[in-house]
Amino acid sequence: MAISRPLSIGVLGGTGPQGRGLGLRFALAGHRVVLGSRDPARAVDAADKLRGDHDLSDDVHLTGADNAEAATCDVVVVAVPFDGVRPIMDAVGDALDGTIVVSCVNRLAFDEDGPYPVPVDEGSAAQLVAALAPGARVVGAFHHVPAGRLRRSTDPIDQDVLVTGDDHDACEVVRQLADAISGARGVRAGSLRVTRPLEELTAVLVGVNTHYRVTAGVRVAGLPASVDG
Amino acid sequence: MAISRPLSIGVLGGTGPQGRGLGLRFALAGHRVVLGSRDPARAVDAADKLRGDHDLSDDVHLTGADNAEAATCDVVVVAVPFDGVRPIMDAVGDALDGTIVVSCVNRLAFDEDGPYPVPVDEGSAAQLVAALAPGARVVGAFHHVPAGRLRRSTDPIDQDVLVTGDDHDACEVVRQLADAISGARGVRAGSLRVTRPLEELTAVLVGVNTHYRVTAGVRVAGLPASVDG
Repeated sequence: MAISRPLSIGVLGGTGPQGRGLGLRFALAGHRVVLGSRDPARAVDAADKLRGDHDLSDDVHLTGADNAEAATCDVVVVAVPFDGVRPIMDAVGDALDGTIVVSCVNRLAFDEDGPYPVPVDEGSAAQLVAALAPGARVVGAFHHVPAGRLRRSTDPIDQDVLVTGDDHDACEVVRQLADAISGARGVRAGSLRVTRPLEELTAVLVGVNTHYRVTAGVRVAGLPASVDG
Repeated sequence: MAISRPLSIGVLGGTGPQGRGLGLRFALAGHRVVLGSRDPARAVDAADKLRGDHDLSDDVHLTGADNAEAATCDVVVVAVPFDGVRPIMDAVGDALDGTIVVSCVNRLAFDEDGPYPVPVDEGSAAQLVAALAPGARVVGAFHHVPAGRLRRSTDPIDQDVLVTGDDHDACEVVRQLADAISGARGVRAGSLRVTRPLEELTAVLVGVNTHYRVTAGVRVAGLPASVDG
Protein backbone atom coordinates (compact mmCIF):
# COMPACT_ATOMS: atom_id res chain seq x y z
CA MET A 1 0.00 0.00 0.00
CA ALA A 2 1.70 3.18 -1.17
CA ILE A 3 0.52 6.61 -0.05
CA SER A 4 -1.40 7.68 -3.15
CA ARG A 5 -2.40 11.23 -2.22
CA PRO A 6 -1.21 14.14 -0.11
CA LEU A 7 -2.17 13.61 3.52
CA SER A 8 -3.17 16.22 6.03
CA ILE A 9 -0.66 16.05 8.89
CA GLY A 10 -1.23 17.83 12.18
CA VAL A 11 1.65 18.37 14.57
CA LEU A 12 0.74 18.68 18.26
CA GLY A 13 3.46 20.77 19.83
CA GLY A 14 4.19 22.02 16.34
CA THR A 15 6.01 25.14 17.50
CA GLY A 16 8.78 23.14 19.22
CA PRO A 17 12.05 22.30 17.46
CA GLN A 18 11.11 18.71 16.52
CA GLY A 19 7.59 19.65 15.48
CA ARG A 20 8.72 22.50 13.22
CA GLY A 21 11.42 20.33 11.67
CA LEU A 22 9.13 17.40 10.90
CA GLY A 23 6.35 19.71 9.72
CA LEU A 24 8.72 21.43 7.29
CA ARG A 25 9.93 18.13 5.84
CA PHE A 26 6.41 16.70 5.47
CA ALA A 27 5.22 19.89 3.77
CA LEU A 28 8.18 19.80 1.37
CA ALA A 29 7.19 16.20 0.57
CA GLY A 30 3.83 17.46 -0.67
CA HIS A 31 1.60 16.93 2.36
CA ARG A 32 -0.72 19.52 3.94
CA VAL A 33 0.80 20.33 7.31
CA VAL A 34 -0.91 22.07 10.22
CA LEU A 35 1.42 23.07 13.06
CA GLY A 36 -0.65 22.97 16.24
CA SER A 37 -0.20 24.93 19.46
CA ARG A 38 -2.28 25.81 22.50
CA ASP A 39 -1.96 29.37 21.23
CA PRO A 40 -3.00 29.46 17.56
CA ALA A 41 -1.25 32.82 17.02
CA ARG A 42 2.08 31.24 17.99
CA ALA A 43 1.44 28.37 15.58
CA VAL A 44 0.64 30.79 12.74
CA ASP A 45 3.82 32.73 13.54
CA ALA A 46 5.91 29.54 13.53
CA ALA A 47 4.48 28.49 10.18
CA ASP A 48 5.00 31.97 8.69
CA LYS A 49 8.60 32.01 9.91
CA LEU A 50 9.31 28.60 8.36
CA ARG A 51 7.69 29.78 5.10
CA GLY A 52 9.89 32.87 5.07
CA ASP A 53 13.14 31.21 6.19
CA HIS A 54 12.82 28.51 3.54
CA ASP A 55 11.25 30.70 0.85
CA LEU A 56 8.37 28.24 0.46
CA SER A 57 6.15 28.70 -2.58
CA ASP A 58 2.36 28.84 -2.36
CA ASP A 59 2.01 25.20 -3.39
CA VAL A 60 3.75 24.10 -0.18
CA HIS A 61 0.98 23.69 2.42
CA LEU A 62 2.21 24.66 5.87
CA THR A 63 -0.06 26.56 8.24
CA GLY A 64 -0.62 27.05 11.96
CA ALA A 65 -3.72 26.49 14.10
CA ASP A 66 -4.72 25.42 17.58
CA ASN A 67 -4.05 21.85 18.66
CA ALA A 68 -7.73 20.93 18.32
CA GLU A 69 -7.66 21.73 14.62
CA ALA A 70 -4.33 19.95 14.13
CA ALA A 71 -5.91 16.89 15.76
CA THR A 72 -8.48 16.61 12.95
CA CYS A 73 -5.83 15.75 10.34
CA ASP A 74 -5.35 12.33 8.67
CA VAL A 75 -2.09 11.82 10.58
CA VAL A 76 -1.36 13.49 13.93
CA VAL A 77 2.21 13.76 15.22
CA VAL A 78 2.74 14.09 18.97
CA ALA A 79 5.86 16.27 19.25
CA VAL A 80 5.48 17.62 22.77
CA PRO A 81 7.95 17.07 25.63
CA PHE A 82 7.12 14.02 27.76
CA ASP A 83 5.46 16.10 30.46
CA GLY A 84 3.15 17.55 27.85
CA VAL A 85 1.76 14.19 26.70
CA ARG A 86 -0.97 13.84 29.32
CA PRO A 87 -2.27 17.44 29.02
CA ILE A 88 -2.38 17.33 25.22
CA MET A 89 -4.10 13.94 25.20
CA ASP A 90 -6.60 15.16 27.81
CA ALA A 91 -7.32 18.08 25.48
CA VAL A 92 -7.58 16.32 22.10
CA GLY A 93 -7.42 12.55 22.68
CA ASP A 94 -11.16 12.08 22.13
CA ALA A 95 -10.81 13.48 18.61
CA LEU A 96 -8.23 10.85 17.63
CA ASP A 97 -10.43 7.77 17.21
CA GLY A 98 -9.30 5.98 14.08
CA THR A 99 -6.52 8.54 13.45
CA ILE A 100 -2.91 7.54 12.79
CA VAL A 101 -1.07 9.11 15.74
CA VAL A 102 2.74 9.22 15.64
CA SER A 103 4.63 9.52 18.91
CA CYS A 104 8.18 10.81 18.60
CA VAL A 105 8.32 11.51 22.33
CA ASN A 106 11.38 10.57 24.40
CA ARG A 107 11.60 10.78 28.17
CA LEU A 108 15.15 11.81 28.96
CA ALA A 109 16.79 13.51 31.88
CA PHE A 110 20.23 15.07 32.16
CA ASP A 111 22.73 15.47 34.95
CA GLU A 112 26.48 16.07 35.17
CA ASP A 113 27.09 12.63 33.62
CA GLY A 114 24.94 13.40 30.59
CA PRO A 115 21.58 12.15 29.35
CA TYR A 116 19.80 9.11 30.70
CA PRO A 117 16.40 7.54 30.04
CA VAL A 118 13.62 7.80 32.61
CA PRO A 119 11.24 4.80 32.81
CA VAL A 120 7.61 5.29 31.81
CA ASP A 121 4.99 3.31 33.76
CA GLU A 122 3.19 2.29 30.57
CA GLY A 123 6.46 0.96 29.10
CA SER A 124 7.12 3.84 26.73
CA ALA A 125 5.82 7.28 25.83
CA ALA A 126 4.15 5.75 22.77
CA GLN A 127 2.28 3.28 24.97
CA LEU A 128 1.24 6.17 27.23
CA VAL A 129 -0.19 7.95 24.17
CA ALA A 130 -2.04 4.75 23.27
CA ALA A 131 -3.41 4.44 26.80
CA LEU A 132 -4.70 8.03 26.73
CA ALA A 133 -6.15 7.81 23.21
CA PRO A 134 -7.41 4.23 23.08
CA GLY A 135 -9.17 4.68 19.74
CA ALA A 136 -6.06 5.98 17.97
CA ARG A 137 -3.80 3.94 15.70
CA VAL A 138 -0.56 4.74 17.54
CA VAL A 139 2.81 4.45 15.86
CA GLY A 140 6.26 5.18 17.31
CA ALA A 141 8.74 6.87 14.93
CA PHE A 142 11.15 9.78 14.39
CA HIS A 143 12.71 9.47 17.86
CA HIS A 144 16.28 10.06 16.73
CA VAL A 145 15.98 12.57 13.91
CA PRO A 146 17.79 15.73 15.01
CA ALA A 147 15.56 18.81 14.95
CA GLY A 148 18.34 21.07 13.75
CA ARG A 149 19.08 18.93 10.72
CA LEU A 150 15.38 18.62 9.88
CA ARG A 151 15.15 22.41 9.74
CA ARG A 152 18.18 22.66 7.42
CA SER A 153 15.84 21.53 4.71
CA THR A 154 18.45 20.70 2.10
CA ASP A 155 20.56 18.51 4.42
CA PRO A 156 19.97 14.78 3.91
CA ILE A 157 19.06 13.08 7.17
CA ASP A 158 21.38 10.02 6.80
CA GLN A 159 19.61 7.69 9.15
CA ASP A 160 16.90 5.09 9.42
CA VAL A 161 13.55 5.87 11.00
CA LEU A 162 12.50 2.83 12.99
CA VAL A 163 8.73 2.46 13.04
CA THR A 164 6.84 0.51 15.69
CA GLY A 165 3.16 -0.16 16.09
CA ASP A 166 0.38 -2.69 16.22
CA ASP A 167 -1.62 -1.44 13.20
CA HIS A 168 0.04 -2.67 10.03
CA ASP A 169 -1.46 -0.09 7.66
CA ALA A 170 -0.77 2.80 10.02
CA CYS A 171 2.87 1.70 10.37
CA GLU A 172 3.22 1.47 6.63
CA VAL A 173 1.87 5.02 6.10
CA VAL A 174 4.35 6.36 8.65
CA ARG A 175 7.20 4.30 7.20
CA GLN A 176 6.50 5.89 3.81
CA LEU A 177 6.36 9.36 5.36
CA ALA A 178 9.87 8.65 6.68
CA ASP A 179 11.06 7.34 3.33
CA ALA A 180 10.01 10.60 1.71
CA ILE A 181 12.46 12.61 3.83
CA SER A 182 15.74 13.04 1.96
CA GLY A 183 18.37 10.57 3.16
CA ALA A 184 16.04 8.77 5.54
CA ARG A 185 14.83 5.20 5.23
CA GLY A 186 11.76 3.95 7.04
CA VAL A 187 12.16 0.51 8.61
CA ARG A 188 9.43 -1.56 10.29
CA ALA A 189 10.81 -2.37 13.71
CA GLY A 190 8.09 -4.34 15.52
CA SER A 191 5.05 -3.86 17.67
CA LEU A 192 4.33 -0.94 20.00
CA ARG A 193 5.65 -2.82 23.04
CA VAL A 194 9.22 -2.69 21.69
CA THR A 195 9.17 1.12 21.41
CA ARG A 196 10.93 1.65 24.77
CA PRO A 197 14.45 0.76 23.59
CA LEU A 198 14.04 3.07 20.59
CA GLU A 199 12.90 5.97 22.76
CA GLU A 200 15.66 5.31 25.29
CA LEU A 201 18.26 4.92 22.56
CA THR A 202 18.00 8.68 22.12
CA ALA A 203 19.97 9.04 25.36
CA VAL A 204 22.70 6.83 23.90
CA LEU A 205 22.86 8.86 20.71
CA VAL A 206 23.01 12.15 22.59
CA GLY A 207 25.91 10.65 24.56
CA VAL A 208 27.64 9.57 21.34
CA ASN A 209 27.17 13.09 19.98
CA THR A 210 28.82 14.57 23.05
CA HIS A 211 31.65 12.04 23.15
CA TYR A 212 32.59 12.24 19.47
CA ARG A 213 31.28 15.76 18.68
CA VAL A 214 29.07 14.53 15.85
CA THR A 215 25.37 14.31 15.05
CA ALA A 216 24.78 10.57 15.25
CA GLY A 217 21.89 8.57 13.91
CA VAL A 218 20.99 4.91 13.60
CA ARG A 219 21.24 2.73 10.54
CA VAL A 220 20.11 -0.87 10.43
CA ALA A 221 22.84 -2.93 8.76
CA GLY A 222 21.93 -6.02 6.76
CA LEU A 223 18.87 -4.58 4.97
CA PRO A 224 18.50 -3.72 1.29
CA ALA A 225 18.82 -0.01 0.42
CA SER A 226 15.05 0.33 0.38
CA VAL A 227 12.55 -1.85 2.17
CA ASP A 228 8.78 -2.01 2.08
CA GLY A 229 6.30 -2.83 4.75
CA MET B 1 45.79 3.67 24.84
CA ALA B 2 46.04 0.85 22.30
CA ILE B 3 46.08 -2.79 23.37
CA SER B 4 49.80 -3.54 23.10
CA ARG B 5 49.89 -7.25 23.93
CA PRO B 6 47.71 -10.35 23.64
CA LEU B 7 45.21 -10.45 26.49
CA SER B 8 43.90 -13.49 28.28
CA ILE B 9 40.12 -13.55 27.80
CA GLY B 10 37.87 -15.86 29.79
CA VAL B 11 34.32 -16.52 28.61
CA LEU B 12 31.82 -17.47 31.32
CA GLY B 13 29.19 -19.56 29.61
CA GLY B 14 31.76 -20.18 26.92
CA THR B 15 30.06 -23.29 25.57
CA GLY B 16 26.92 -21.38 24.52
CA PRO B 17 26.48 -20.01 21.00
CA GLN B 18 27.48 -16.41 21.80
CA GLY B 19 30.39 -17.46 24.01
CA ARG B 20 31.84 -19.81 21.42
CA GLY B 21 31.43 -17.22 18.67
CA LEU B 22 33.11 -14.41 20.59
CA GLY B 23 35.82 -16.73 21.89
CA LEU B 24 36.64 -17.86 18.36
CA ARG B 25 36.91 -14.28 17.08
CA PHE B 26 39.05 -13.09 20.00
CA ALA B 27 41.39 -16.08 19.58
CA LEU B 28 41.71 -15.40 15.86
CA ALA B 29 42.62 -11.80 16.76
CA GLY B 30 45.62 -13.11 18.68
CA HIS B 31 44.32 -13.24 22.25
CA ARG B 32 44.53 -16.22 24.63
CA VAL B 33 40.96 -17.41 25.07
CA VAL B 34 39.65 -19.71 27.80
CA LEU B 35 36.10 -20.93 27.27
CA GLY B 36 34.61 -21.50 30.72
CA SER B 37 31.86 -23.87 31.79
CA ARG B 38 30.61 -25.38 35.04
CA ASP B 39 31.76 -28.68 33.53
CA PRO B 40 35.37 -28.27 32.37
CA ALA B 41 35.13 -31.35 30.15
CA ARG B 42 32.33 -29.69 28.17
CA ALA B 43 34.44 -26.55 27.81
CA VAL B 44 37.43 -28.54 26.57
CA ASP B 45 35.16 -30.33 24.09
CA ALA B 46 33.73 -27.02 22.84
CA ALA B 47 37.22 -25.58 22.36
CA ASP B 48 38.44 -28.75 20.59
CA LYS B 49 35.43 -28.68 18.29
CA LEU B 50 36.04 -25.04 17.37
CA ARG B 51 39.71 -25.84 16.76
CA GLY B 52 38.79 -28.72 14.46
CA ASP B 53 35.90 -26.99 12.64
CA HIS B 54 38.05 -23.94 11.87
CA ASP B 55 41.33 -25.82 11.38
CA LEU B 56 43.06 -23.56 13.92
CA SER B 57 46.84 -23.71 14.02
CA ASP B 58 48.79 -24.20 17.24
CA ASP B 59 49.53 -20.48 17.53
CA VAL B 60 45.83 -19.75 18.01
CA HIS B 61 45.19 -19.95 21.75
CA LEU B 62 41.72 -21.35 22.48
CA THR B 63 41.20 -23.77 25.33
CA GLY B 64 38.47 -24.86 27.76
CA ALA B 65 38.40 -24.87 31.56
CA ASP B 66 35.99 -24.45 34.44
CA ASN B 67 34.43 -21.04 35.02
CA ALA B 68 36.69 -20.37 38.01
CA GLU B 69 39.77 -20.61 35.82
CA ALA B 70 38.16 -18.50 33.07
CA ALA B 71 37.46 -15.87 35.72
CA THR B 72 41.19 -15.36 36.36
CA CYS B 73 41.79 -13.88 32.89
CA ASP B 74 42.59 -10.22 32.11
CA VAL B 75 39.16 -9.76 30.54
CA VAL B 76 36.14 -11.86 31.49
CA VAL B 77 33.10 -12.02 29.21
CA VAL B 78 29.74 -12.89 30.75
CA ALA B 79 27.96 -14.83 28.01
CA VAL B 80 25.36 -16.72 30.02
CA PRO B 81 21.57 -16.42 29.61
CA PHE B 82 20.04 -13.80 31.90
CA ASP B 83 18.89 -16.41 34.44
CA GLY B 84 22.47 -17.62 34.71
CA VAL B 85 23.91 -14.24 35.73
CA ARG B 86 23.23 -14.54 39.46
CA PRO B 87 24.52 -18.14 39.84
CA ILE B 88 27.70 -17.45 37.88
CA MET B 89 28.41 -14.25 39.81
CA ASP B 90 27.74 -16.05 43.10
CA ALA B 91 30.31 -18.62 41.99
CA VAL B 92 33.10 -16.41 40.64
CA GLY B 93 32.22 -12.75 41.40
CA ASP B 94 34.72 -12.52 44.26
CA ALA B 95 37.55 -13.32 41.84
CA LEU B 96 36.70 -10.38 39.59
CA ASP B 97 38.02 -7.45 41.65
CA GLY B 98 39.83 -5.13 39.27
CA THR B 99 39.00 -7.31 36.25
CA ILE B 100 37.46 -5.94 33.06
CA VAL B 101 34.12 -7.79 32.91
CA VAL B 102 32.09 -7.57 29.70
CA SER B 103 28.35 -8.23 29.86
CA CYS B 104 26.73 -9.16 26.56
CA VAL B 105 23.63 -10.42 28.36
CA ASN B 106 20.14 -9.55 27.10
CA ARG B 107 16.93 -10.31 28.94
CA LEU B 108 14.37 -11.15 26.27
CA ALA B 109 11.17 -13.13 26.26
CA PHE B 110 9.17 -14.43 23.33
CA ASP B 111 5.49 -15.04 22.72
CA GLU B 112 3.26 -15.37 19.66
CA ASP B 113 3.93 -11.70 18.82
CA GLY B 114 7.71 -12.17 18.84
CA PRO B 115 10.49 -11.03 21.13
CA TYR B 116 10.14 -8.38 23.79
CA PRO B 117 12.44 -7.00 26.49
CA VAL B 118 11.88 -7.88 30.14
CA PRO B 119 12.80 -5.15 32.67
CA VAL B 120 15.70 -5.78 35.05
CA ASP B 121 15.39 -4.33 38.57
CA GLU B 122 18.95 -2.99 38.48
CA GLY B 123 18.24 -1.19 35.17
CA SER B 124 20.06 -3.61 32.90
CA ALA B 125 21.79 -6.97 32.97
CA ALA B 126 25.13 -5.14 32.92
CA GLN B 127 24.16 -3.20 36.04
CA LEU B 128 23.11 -6.47 37.69
CA VAL B 129 26.57 -7.87 36.93
CA ALA B 130 28.09 -4.74 38.45
CA ALA B 131 25.91 -5.07 41.55
CA LEU B 132 26.98 -8.71 42.03
CA ALA B 133 30.70 -8.07 41.35
CA PRO B 134 31.20 -4.62 42.86
CA GLY B 135 34.98 -4.70 42.43
CA ALA B 136 34.80 -5.46 38.72
CA ARG B 137 35.25 -2.91 35.92
CA VAL B 138 32.01 -3.74 34.13
CA VAL B 139 31.47 -2.90 30.47
CA GLY B 140 28.41 -3.59 28.30
CA ALA B 141 29.12 -4.67 24.71
CA PHE B 142 28.47 -7.26 21.97
CA HIS B 143 24.72 -7.37 22.62
CA HIS B 144 23.70 -7.49 18.98
CA VAL B 145 26.39 -9.54 17.29
CA PRO B 146 24.75 -12.68 15.91
CA ALA B 147 26.30 -15.89 17.25
CA GLY B 148 25.91 -17.71 13.96
CA ARG B 149 27.83 -15.08 12.04
CA LEU B 150 30.56 -14.96 14.68
CA ARG B 151 31.12 -18.68 14.22
CA ARG B 152 31.38 -18.34 10.42
CA SER B 153 34.83 -17.01 11.05
CA THR B 154 35.45 -15.56 7.60
CA ASP B 155 32.17 -13.57 7.46
CA PRO B 156 32.61 -9.87 8.25
CA ILE B 157 30.29 -8.76 11.01
CA ASP B 158 29.05 -5.52 9.36
CA GLN B 159 27.90 -3.71 12.46
CA ASP B 160 28.99 -1.43 15.24
CA VAL B 161 29.61 -2.71 18.75
CA LEU B 162 28.30 -0.09 21.16
CA VAL B 163 30.34 -0.05 24.36
CA THR B 164 29.04 1.33 27.66
CA GLY B 165 30.71 1.61 31.02
CA ASP B 166 31.95 3.88 33.77
CA ASP B 167 35.67 2.95 33.58
CA HIS B 168 37.27 4.77 30.66
CA ASP B 169 40.25 2.47 30.23
CA ALA B 170 38.15 -0.68 30.51
CA CYS B 171 35.75 0.66 27.87
CA GLU B 172 38.63 1.46 25.56
CA VAL B 173 40.10 -2.06 25.86
CA VAL B 174 36.72 -3.56 24.99
CA ARG B 175 36.17 -1.08 22.16
CA GLN B 176 39.49 -2.17 20.66
CA LEU B 177 38.58 -5.85 21.10
CA ALA B 178 35.46 -5.09 19.03
CA ASP B 179 37.45 -3.17 16.41
CA ALA B 180 39.65 -6.23 15.91
CA ILE B 181 36.69 -8.34 14.72
CA SER B 182 36.45 -8.20 10.94
CA GLY B 183 33.78 -5.75 9.78
CA ALA B 184 32.97 -4.53 13.28
CA ARG B 185 33.60 -1.05 14.66
CA GLY B 186 33.71 -0.35 18.38
CA VAL B 187 31.91 2.83 19.43
CA ARG B 188 31.88 4.39 22.90
CA ALA B 189 28.20 4.78 23.75
CA GLY B 190 28.08 6.22 27.25
CA SER B 191 28.04 5.17 30.87
CA LEU B 192 26.75 1.90 32.28
CA ARG B 193 23.37 3.38 33.14
CA VAL B 194 22.50 3.75 29.44
CA THR B 195 23.06 0.04 28.74
CA ARG B 196 19.36 -0.84 29.02
CA PRO B 197 18.30 0.49 25.61
CA LEU B 198 21.19 -1.36 23.99
CA GLU B 199 20.27 -4.64 25.67
CA GLU B 200 16.59 -4.16 24.85
CA LEU B 201 17.36 -3.14 21.27
CA THR B 202 18.17 -6.80 20.69
CA ALA B 203 14.42 -7.48 20.75
CA VAL B 204 13.92 -4.86 18.05
CA LEU B 205 16.65 -6.36 15.87
CA VAL B 206 15.27 -9.88 16.27
CA GLY B 207 11.90 -8.46 15.18
CA VAL B 208 13.51 -6.77 12.16
CA ASN B 209 15.18 -10.08 11.28
CA THR B 210 11.85 -11.87 11.36
CA HIS B 211 9.98 -9.15 9.46
CA TYR B 212 12.52 -8.71 6.66
CA ARG B 213 14.20 -12.17 6.77
CA VAL B 214 17.66 -10.69 7.25
CA THR B 215 20.37 -10.66 9.91
CA ALA B 216 20.22 -7.06 11.07
CA GLY B 217 22.78 -5.11 13.05
CA VAL B 218 23.23 -1.54 14.16
CA ARG B 219 25.45 1.10 12.62
CA VAL B 220 25.86 4.56 14.05
CA ALA B 221 25.56 7.06 11.20
CA GLY B 222 27.47 10.33 11.34
CA LEU B 223 30.77 8.94 12.67
CA PRO B 224 34.08 8.63 10.82
CA ALA B 225 34.92 5.11 9.55
CA SER B 226 37.10 4.49 12.57
CA VAL B 227 36.85 6.16 15.96
CA ASP B 228 39.01 6.01 19.02
CA GLY B 229 38.12 6.21 22.66
